Formats: sequence, structure tokens, C-alpha cells
Amino acid sequence: MPSSFGNTLRVSIFGQSHSAGIGCVVEGLPSGHHVDLDALAAFMARRAPGQGSWTTPRAEPDAVKVVAGLNVRGDTCGAPLALLIENTNTRSQDYDRLLTHPRPGHADWPAQAKWGGSQDVRGGGHFSGRLTAPLCAAGGIARAILGERGVRVAAHLASIAEVEDEPFAPLPGTVLDRQLEAVTAARPLTTIDSAVARRMAQAIDAARGDQDSVGGTIECVATGLPAGVGSPMFDGLENLLARALFGIPAIKGVEFGAGFAAARLRGSEDNDPWHTDGSEVMPTSNNAGGILGGLSTGAPIILRVAIKPTSSISRPQQTIDMARGKDDTVEVAGRHDPCIAPRAVPVVEATCALALLDAWLSFPPEHARRNA
Amino acid sequence: MPSSFGNTLRVSIFGQSHSAGIGCVVEGLPSGHHVDLDALAAFMARRAPGQGSWTTPRAEPDAVKVVAGLNVRGDTCGAPLALLIENTNTRSQDYDRLLTHPRPGHADWPAQAKWGGSQDVRGGGHFSGRLTAPLCAAGGIARAILGERGVRVAAHLASIAEVEDEPFAPLPGTVLDRQLEAVTAARPLTTIDSAVARRMAQAIDAARGDQDSVGGTIECVATGLPAGVGSPMFDGLENLLARALFGIPAIKGVEFGAGFAAARLRGSEDNDPWHTDGSEVMPTSNNAGGILGGLSTGAPIILRVAIKPTSSISRPQQTIDMARGKDDTVEVAGRHDPCIAPRAVPVVEATCALALLDAWLSFPPEHARRNA
Amino acid sequence: MPSSFGNTLRVSIFGQSHSAGIGCVVEGLPSGHHVDLDALAAFMARRAPGQGSWTTPRAEPDAVKVVAGLNVRGDTCGAPLALLIENTNTRSQDYDRLLTHPRPGHADWPAQAKWGGSQDVRGGGHFSGRLTAPLCAAGGIARAILGERGVRVAAHLASIAEVEDEPFAPLPGTVLDRQLEAVTAARPLTTIDSAVARRMAQAIDAARGDQDSVGGTIECVATGLPAGVGSPMFDGLENLLARALFGIPAIKGVEFGAGFAAARLRGSEDNDPWHTDGSEVMPTSNNAGGILGGLSTGAPIILRVAIKPTSSISRPQQTIDMARGKDDTVEVAGRHDPCIAPRAVPVVEATCALALLDAWLSFPPEHARRNA
Amino acid sequence: MPSSFGNTLRVSIFGQSHSAGIGCVVEGLPSGHHVDLDALAAFMARRAPGQGSWTTPRAEPDAVKVVAGLNVRGDTCGAPLALLIENTNTRSQDYDRLLTHPRPGHADWPAQAKWGGSQDVRGGGHFSGRLTAPLCAAGGIARAILGERGVRVAAHLASIAEVEDEPFAPLPGTVLDRQLEAVTAARPLTTIDSAVARRMAQAIDAARGDQDSVGGTIECVATGLPAGVGSPMFDGLENLLARALFGIPAIKGVEFGAGFAAARLRGSEDNDPWHTDGSEVMPTSNNAGGILGGLSTGAPIILRVAIKPTSSISRPQQTIDMARGKDDTVEVAGRHDPCIAPRAVPVVEATCALALLDAWLSFPPEHARRNA
Repeated sequence: MPSSFGNTLRVSIFGQSHSAGIGCVVEGLPSGHHVDLDALAAFMARRAPGQGSWTTPRAEPDAVKVVAGLNVRGDTCGAPLALLIENTNTRSQDYDRLLTHPRPGHADWPAQAKWGGSQDVRGGGHFSGRLTAPLCAAGGIARAILGERGVRVAAHLASIAEVEDEPFAPLPGTVLDRQLEAVTAARPLTTIDSAVARRMAQAIDAARGDQDSVGGTIECVATGLPAGVGSPMFDGLENLLARALFGIPAIKGVEFGAGFAAARLRGSEDNDPWHTDGSEVMPTSNNAGGILGGLSTGAPIILRVAIKPTSSISRPQQTIDMARGKDDTVEVAGRHDPCIAPRAVPVVEATCALALLDAWLSFPPEHARRNA
Repeated sequence: MPSSFGNTLRVSIFGQSHSAGIGCVVEGLPSGHHVDLDALAAFMARRAPGQGSWTTPRAEPDAVKVVAGLNVRGDTCGAPLALLIENTNTRSQDYDRLLTHPRPGHADWPAQAKWGGSQDVRGGGHFSGRLTAPLCAAGGIARAILGERGVRVAAHLASIAEVEDEPFAPLPGTVLDRQLEAVTAARPLTTIDSAVARRMAQAIDAARGDQDSVGGTIECVATGLPAGVGSPMFDGLENLLARALFGIPAIKGVEFGAGFAAARLRGSEDNDPWHTDGSEVMPTSNNAGGILGGLSTGAPIILRVAIKPTSSISRPQQTIDMARGKDDTVEVAGRHDPCIAPRAVPVVEATCALALLDAWLSFPPEHARRNA
Repeated sequence: MPSSFGNTLRVSIFGQSHSAGIGCVVEGLPSGHHVDLDALAAFMARRAPGQGSWTTPRAEPDAVKVVAGLNVRGDTCGAPLALLIENTNTRSQDYDRLLTHPRPGHADWPAQAKWGGSQDVRGGGHFSGRLTAPLCAAGGIARAILGERGVRVAAHLASIAEVEDEPFAPLPGTVLDRQLEAVTAARPLTTIDSAVARRMAQAIDAARGDQDSVGGTIECVATGLPAGVGSPMFDGLENLLARALFGIPAIKGVEFGAGFAAARLRGSEDNDPWHTDGSEVMPTSNNAGGILGGLSTGAPIILRVAIKPTSSISRPQQTIDMARGKDDTVEVAGRHDPCIAPRAVPVVEATCALALLDAWLSFPPEHARRNA
Repeated sequence: MPSSFGNTLRVSIFGQSHSAGIGCVVEGLPSGHHVDLDALAAFMARRAPGQGSWTTPRAEPDAVKVVAGLNVRGDTCGAPLALLIENTNTRSQDYDRLLTHPRPGHADWPAQAKWGGSQDVRGGGHFSGRLTAPLCAAGGIARAILGERGVRVAAHLASIAEVEDEPFAPLPGTVLDRQLEAVTAARPLTTIDSAVARRMAQAIDAARGDQDSVGGTIECVATGLPAGVGSPMFDGLENLLARALFGIPAIKGVEFGAGFAAARLRGSEDNDPWHTDGSEVMPTSNNAGGILGGLSTGAPIILRVAIKPTSSISRPQQTIDMARGKDDTVEVAGRHDPCIAPRAVPVVEATCALALLDAWLSFPPEHARRNA
């Protein structure tokens, strides 16, 4: 089974929770980009565990080793970039029970139906959330390349349980600038409104206290992408972004611009009128989320993803005993993040950066190129 | 720019609103399947205009001509299937204004930014909703093949504006059987509850009376898919379905199972417990929408899509005059469906059928095959 | 089964010898290219039957109909190009014998092993040489686009049976210019040396007189491609060209530059020394055929393909009776070209043009683009 | 730029001659295959340097580390397989001269034209023959999987300079059995005839004595593949094999069955008559090399590749000084294999195994599967 995506920029993720290492190969990165390893480590740190009371104590350093793809100066050289993260904290505990007692909310049962026992069940194997680490690393580099080209990708926790942050302003301006500044500084919970962060932390703590977990939503914006990036139909920005984003475990919904709310609007409300100051063209609202017909409009790309509550909860849960063909219960050992969303924020940014950079490289505005 | 998707089963769509024809090439269909052209025509008829007061009067017969791919008996023969629909109703009206006055909600402006005037603006060109006709045809065949394999794909109007139909029962049983029977008969508005259909028609008529349009949501279910179809990460069922579905113009959101509502749930509520009667394994709830880790669980696949209100409304709208670099207004000539959702129901079924059949052919349960 | 190739420029071929039509969909053509339909018809005419005593009398007009992909001015518009050629001369003769008596040299038997009777056996179905007509059409357009960019693609009959034409000069200059002029005018047998053409015609006639067929080789050159097009390893120019060329039925070998002769050379003989006049860099020999490490060197791309003798010969041949499981004989009815090579010359040009244009669009010199 | 190939079975190669490591990611391997690491090491040893007087003294152990893809029992688990080989012998010598003085026969100049100085020039970077080590490792596993399925892949040195080995018998039988046994034992020069090996060694030594190098050809056979594997046109066995094989540096030609010799044959000579003993179908000759219409015929797959003489020779060679825009000379430092062909034999086997296994997984005989 493959674990890769992208056209010109192609990312292939490998690894299991308890294999020797995890990592990725990234083909098609533009050459001549200097990879700032310190900046990459800082970006990875946003995903790292141990930042709050709610995160898993599995404290892997998650140091990213560049195996290949750079020249002597540390620049991308045209060859595939290979990144490796060693798995150092793989406790040799007994995972055999997972072969017979699939955990609710996890892929244990469908994996058994697919591979009949050959799958690697230790720690969730290739389904583990740990696999978002190399995705984060690859995307961190893509995000830096986009930054050099004037595109900024940023996300925040739009909600945890019932607690909601203010939404990103849909159009460029001082409000959005202020919000982007806020989310850059907000740690460990990435919100625009710091008071919201405190209430979110309480909601997470409450779930943890109940041996339970909570879900949330993440909103991501990308500013500065020129109009005309993407492709009609199946390689449009929505298609490429959605396909990549559903690769992040726990994401169960993706919407762009007004999204599901648009289904309740009238056309006269949903349509974004065009406006020009004589040079730049920009809509006066952005219900389209910066995408029409699969192509970027020049307005900020705006999307939201739904993240389900962490499936691993320590309460006993009903399941089956596959060996004996009858119902049973399972308790998920170990401690886990009672909410995945906080650490998923940089992963969403990374994934969007990869999809957008791929779209730009694969399906650029032809007009601009032809006239260059 | 490409307009294709799929792995083993690959669909390539061609055509513009006013080109000589529109159609598709489908590679990788299983050989030996008899294409029932009458059944296909009946399926296409569900998408055809002219069924209600709200649909466009552009009455194209949309007869599907099989150009290639069948043997003398009318069975798929292993060669690519090519389907052609002639464009007969292409009025030679003046579309030049669209080159300077982009319609709000349409791809006119980003297409101009992309192709600088080379794009085909007549009737929306390749961005036209007409392109869903060949998608519908290709998917109608995929849906029939799935049917032979015991998989049933059905969709209904979950909502129009504020009017909501009852949701599909998330698990197999008499309720779901009754609902599937209901949606098969319900025409022209495909709902489970016929009283809801009447209120939806009123909502559409109200919008039309206001020279406006409304959006809606469509829910789709696929029953009978075995567990273990799909792939982790980027070729999971959610990825493949979402990528394909966003190819339908006007879709702005996709969610699976509990979807965005899962973001407000606790893990103890969202996790679906496993149950077995000794032979079959099935969860006792289906918040996962039949998909975990990208793999089918054996429970029904359930998803919902958000469809924005029709962008073409006859009210004057604010836009720009690209030739003169200043703001102006545009009126969208012609009559258009005040709500796209009703005719999109079979298109969603078709698209899901294509994505699911591709997933099954490309990423089947290995265990079953190995033991076959 | 798929019948497509290419990355950014993707060609999908459909049709069977006796289906309603044959054709292709070409995704990713640069927009804004005016398709000269007269020039395309002239290019197609070079492949058409009926030009010499040796060609099949199946006189299809092979008119190429543009179904989609052009704007009102006849320029490529960014949407997929769809070309259709109707099959008008499909005699309703009995092909049932092919289902039991596979013809030597044809795909009848492996097709039976693959599809078990579902394959379309009429006239060879999807394996028919007729499928090179849409390939020729697609490539004729790619060749014209390359021409606008300063790249010239030309081929000639390097040999028929034992009769050999002079080879292309491996480097730019007056010799190559004279040769390219010669092959442009030489019809119906495309050779550099017109005396060779007469002897080739005799060799073909001799085979025909013996109810037999002969093979040949075709050499193709592409001049003007800038250095740095292509990719290391599996998407190099040799990889892309070879993969595409083996799609032409009857091709059994592909070699670049010195090719198989290089296997007998010393490194000091085979290595091409570099030379510069201060501005341009060019090797002083071209054993590499213009390709090193998968990348273009700036020297002409040179390749040769081996074409086996026509498999359809009217002599009785030994085969099996699959229905009765015993040996039998088969006579191939109808008249066929006693040598495929002459009509394959434009097909080789077309295929090389598609592969080279795809390589250029997909894997361009980054340096040039970055500095543009 | 990408460095990957394959459909269902996808191989992505990473690394440069002097990067921290080289390796590969293999997606789509069948699950449940036990990877015999000792057998893999033995297969890799056939490619290793230091086996004869002619090989490079860069004595890397080339130990293959499995980073991911296996379960606790060492079986493929459905997740991507990641293999890593550390680069331990990367002398910090000065390669800067390669940035200005491109070596004849190498990719230095086109790489400069492509990446403008960003490429990694150390030891040839990503173009180095060292990159065939991970290809060999991936293919060694594919070859073992094919072996379990009854397909045997073996190659031998068909020629070095003018010295030729006897060819493989084209059809199954005692001769081919004896030949396959012979090549399994023949080391370090893999020939059928051991006397030929001695003369080849002399030819190589002679070239080395002249500070020069020689080329050769390799013939590869695959027995036991069922009929009906592959696809018409662009995903046929010839296409997939050729595309993969040209990924091996130094290969300049690929031919199947009679290959280029077929161009001189009559159809009555080249066509392979069919024969059956009542159960199995097999041709009585095999000029097709086991492939018709892109599909396997059931007869052995037979192909030959041309390998140019090693480009690195220690004689002074003419080149350019890019910094000063004038002609100059270059001497290639270090010692290199005076003939690449001997160590390329297992690489050809590995590459063919990968392409054939991919073809079998991606384009299997549908008939057999349908009836299974």
C-alpha cells in the first residue's frame, strides 16, 4: 500500500510506531533552497509532545536527520530529499492483545481484515500519529519555500469541544495581520484569543480527568498565493488539499471558505463580488475560501478541518475477541494526548504547505510563465 | 491541465460547455461486465434538466454514445471505455463580456489569471456543470459493477436551505433498507421523507422568485463494501472520495460519519464499539462513517457534501471591468437552476462509486486475495 | 488496463480496430497554441495507407475531429484536448476464428489468457496498428509546439531488411541540415538517400511477392532541445522515450546514440569531449545521443528503433485450436502492409515529440526558469 | 526531480554518492513475505566491489538496514519498506573542479545546465552508480517474491567488448535449466561458459592496462511468468521493463527477443508458431522474447541491454572550463571499474524483477483472478 501524494512535489512517508525509524522522501523540491535546520527544528518543536499537561509523556527528541538531498552548502540539490527520525522510545511491551482485541476508533480491525495478521500492530504501526512527524518535517520545508515566495501558511485552533476561537479574517488587512501575529506567538495552544486558549486547556483537562478525550477544529489560512494556481476538476486546490489533509489521522471533515454554512446561504449572499483598485483584483468577501473552479482567486485560501477526539482512552471499552469470535472488552494501556488538535496545528500547516507548493509547481498560472 | 483521477480505475473527463462534445475515457474497468445502456440512460435521466420547475430549460438529450471499450456482446473488453455526449444546444450568443466582466462565484477571473485569454469562456467552458454529465455516465457504470459485487451506493438530499431530510441510519437494518427503498422511488427531489421534498421545492421556488438561488447538502451511503479496502494515509477512502468529490463544481465541504460534529464529542461518545455475532464483525455505532485509518470497516460508508448556492443568479452583481481596470456590474444572462443540489444527487453517487471501485481494485483486502 | 503515458503532458489512447471510433485525450498541452488543422492533416497523411504498392487497401480517410480542447479561435485553451477518428471501414467479417486460432506474432493468445474471451478480437481490437493514428495526431500537435520552441523532430527509414540508409549526422551542421531537408521531401519512403528508397521498395515488393513481410529500423533526431531537460534515473529522457516508443506495436528494440555499438567501444572512444566557442557548449562527438544521466546535453537527441516484420502474412502458419486443445493452422485473411516501417516513421516522430515535450514541461532546466 | 517508478509496486530511490546515506522506499510490496536478510546480503554481494582486479577499491560494506516495513517476525506488513545504506567512505576530496570542468561521458554538464550550481557534484551526486545499490536491494526482495511465485529471474554477461557468451536458450528445457545453473555458480564474472569468463577478464584487464574502459551487454531471462501479464500500449512489459532499465546508469539500448535482429527478418522467420500439448500453450520459437502486444505469452521473457564503457577513465580528456568559457582538459581522479557490466548483472536482475512484479500486481491476468 502506498503512503505518498503529490505530483511535481511528491512526498512518500515511511515508518511504523516501533520500527527502527520513520521518515520521508520528498521528490521535486525546487533546487537551490537553503534548508534552515534550526528553523525546521523549531517548527517540529510545535508538534512535539510534552508541552502541556495533556500531551503524551513519550518524550522522543524527534531530531530530523537529513540523509540525502542537500549539497555541501545545505541547499536542495535537485535530488530527492530523504529525512529520517529515529524511533528511540519503543518499549517492548506486549501488543499481542491488539491482534485479537481491536481498539474502538483505531484501525486495528480493518487492518486485520486487510492483512490477516501481517500488519505491524505495535503502537498502531503505520497508522500511528507518529507518522505525522515526517509529514511535519517535509511540510516545514515546503512552508519555508512558500515563505520565500511570499506565501504565508498559518493555522490555529478554531475550537476544542465547545470552546471557539475567533475566526481568521477572510481578506487581507490589519485584522488578519494582527491575527497572524497572535498565532505565531501563542503557545502551547495556538489561538488568536489568549483567553480562549485558557478555556480550551480547561476543556482538555476536564476530559482527561474523566479518562476521556475531546475533539476540535483547526482553521488554516494561506495568504499571498497568486491567482490562477490549480486545475479544474480533480486537481483543483480543494481536491489536492483535501486529499492530503485526510492523510492526517483523526481528520473527519474538510471545508473551504463558507463550507457547510454555504449550503444554507442564498447565492446573493454567498457570491463574492469582485473589486479592483486599478491594479490588484480582490473579492470584497471570501466565502469561496480563495478557490473557484479549483483555481486560486488571489484571496487568502481558508479551510477548516474537523479532528475527532483521541481514540485512545483509558476507560474499558466494548470490543471483540477475534480469536474466540465473541464480544469482550479492551483497555488501552499507556497515556495518550486527551486532545490531538493542539499538536496537529503545525501538521495541518505543513500538509497545506506541501499541497499548495505542489499545486503551484504542477499547475502554475500559465499566463505569467508564458510572459516571463 | 489534467482532468482525471483514479489509480487502477482512471477517469479522464474532456469537453467544454460549447465544444463539439463532452465525454470521458475510463481506463481499468474490470473486463466482462455487460454495460446495460438502458439502465445507464435511466441513471443519466436522474441528472437531466427539465424535471422540475427549477431546472434549466437547456434540454440536451445527453445521449451517451459508446465510442470504444466494449466487445461485440456489449461487455467491457479490457480496452479503455470512451463515452461521448454531443453538445447540441450551443447557442452562439455573445460570451465576450465574460472575458472582461468575471461573474461572481464563477471561475472566470482565476481562469483569466491562469490562461490570460486563451481559456474557453463560452458557458463556463471546462468549468461548466455540464462536465458532470460524463462523470455521471462513467460513475453509473462503476455503480452497476459495484452492484454486481454486492455494494449499493445511494444518496439523498440531506438539506436544501434550512429544510432537512432525515439522515440515513448509520448501520445496516430494516430502517436503512426502508430508506434506500424510499430514495430509489423519490423523484424528482430525492429525499427519504416525501413531505420534506415538498418543503424543499418550496424553498427552491422561493429563491427563484427572488431571482436568487439556494444551496444544500447531500448525504451518500455505500453498503456492502468488505472491511479492509483502502490504504493508510494518502490513498485512504476518505482521501480518494474527497479528492473525487471536490471535482464536482460547487462542493465546498466533505465530511465522513460524524464529521464536523465529532469535533465536539468526547472519545467515549465518538468511538464505535465492536460487536460480533460470531461470524460477522460490525460496530454498534458508526461515527467513523465506515472508515478507520483510511480502510473500510465493513460498516456502511457514510459521507455528506456541502453544495453552495448556484453562482449564476439573474440579479445585477458587482464585478470588475478587466479591460478598463475599474469596478462595474454584471448580469448573468440565461436561466439557470436556482438550486444545483437536486441534479447533483446522482453525480455524487456516481463519483463515490468511481472512487470506491478504484479503491477496491487498487487497494483490496490482501488477506482475502491471498487466501483465494 | 490503461493506455496512457506522460506526466504533465498526458496522452490517453482509446479505441479498437472495429469500435465506433478511435481517438485520444491529451491533458496538459500548453495553452494558447493554435492548432493548424491543415498541417495536422498533412502530418497524418504521412501515416495514411494507400501511398505505395505495399500498403493496406483499407482506405480510411482518418479525418481527425477535434471534440474538445480549443477555444473559439482554435487555440488550446487549457482544457483537455479530445480527438476523434471515426472507424468507417469496419467490415462485418467473421473474426470468431481468432478466438480459437491465435495468429502467430499477434497478441491473440496472451489476450485470451488475460481476458478469457472478453477481449475484442475484431481486427486485433485495441492491439491494432490503427491505434497509432490518434497517437500520431496527438504527437503531430506536440511536434508543432516543439517547432515553435525551436525543436525539430524528424525520422527516416534507417533500414528495411538489409538495405540501409545513411545515418543522421550526430551533430548540428550543414550535413544534418541537408539530411533534414531531404527527409522532409522524401515520400512515400522517408529516406535521406533517394536511391536507397528505391532499393527498399524492391525489398518490400520481394517480400510481398513471397506472401511474406520484412522489418526495418527507424532513426529519429531531435535538434534544438536545450541542455538540462529530463531527470536522473527513471524519468530521464531515455526512460520516457523508450516507454512511449514501445507503445508502438512491432517495436522490439530502442537504442540511443551509439546504442548497442557502444558495448564494443572503449571509453576513450565512446566519451564525447566537450567543446565551447565561448558561448555555446557542444560535444565534439555524440555517442551519447544527446543524453547523459537522463538529461539532455544540448546536442541532438538521436535514437533508433527496431521494427519487426509485419506479423500478418497470408501464408498458412502453425497455431493451436484452443477450443479443441490441439495444434492446427491459421491463414490470416485480408491484405496487410508487407512492411510496417514506412508508415511508422511519422508515428515515431509523433511519439518522440510527445515524450520530449512532456519531459520539457515536467522536468525543465530549473536554472533557466529560476533566472527567468 | 523524481527518482521513482512503478505503479502498484513503487520504488523511490534517494541518496548521493557523498550524502549521509543512500536508500529506497518501496510501496506496495505484498504483505506477509518474509524478508531473508541473509539471502539479500548474498544478492547484494554480487554487486559489491572488490571481487576482481577490475573493481573499484572503494570498499563499502553496503550493509542494508531495514528502517521500516517489516513486522516483528520480519515479514512485510503492508507499510512501505524503507532501506538505508550508510555512506561510510566519502573522502573529503576536492570536487570543486567538477563544477567548472565537466567530465566527458558524465552528467556534470547537463546537471550544471539544469541546476546552475546547486547540484551535488561530489562523486557524481545522485547520478553515481552507487545509487544502483538500493535499487539492487529493492529488486533482490522483489526477485525473492517472484521466486516464491515460480518466476525465476537470471542474467549473465552476454558480451564484454568483442567476447561473447552463448545466449540463453529461448524456451524452457534442459538447455536453459543447465544454463541457469551455470550462471548461478559463475562468479565473479557471471557467464554461462566459464571459458568465456576468462577471456572477458582478459579484455577488461587489457582496457585497464591502457588506462581505458570497455562496455558490454547483459542478457536477462525470466521464466515461469504466466501468460496475460501486462497491458497494451504504454504499460506493456516492454514499456515497463525499458523504463526501469534505462534508470541504470550506462545503459544505452534495450531489446526484447530477436530485438534489432528482427528488423532484418522476414515475418515467416520472426513469427513464433503456437503449439500445445493439450494443456499448456507455448510457442515453438521465441523471437518475441515472451511478449506480444505488451502481454506475457507464457514463454520466457528475454531481453538484452547495452552497457557503455565506464565513463571515468584516467586518461586526460578534452573538456571545457565553464568558469572561463574556453576549452581545457580534465583528468578523472580515483580508480574506477574499467568495466561496469560485471557488477551490473545483479542490478539488471533486480530491476527486471521490480518491473515484472509491478506488472503482475498492477496488470494481472484478469481471467485467472475472476475465476479464482
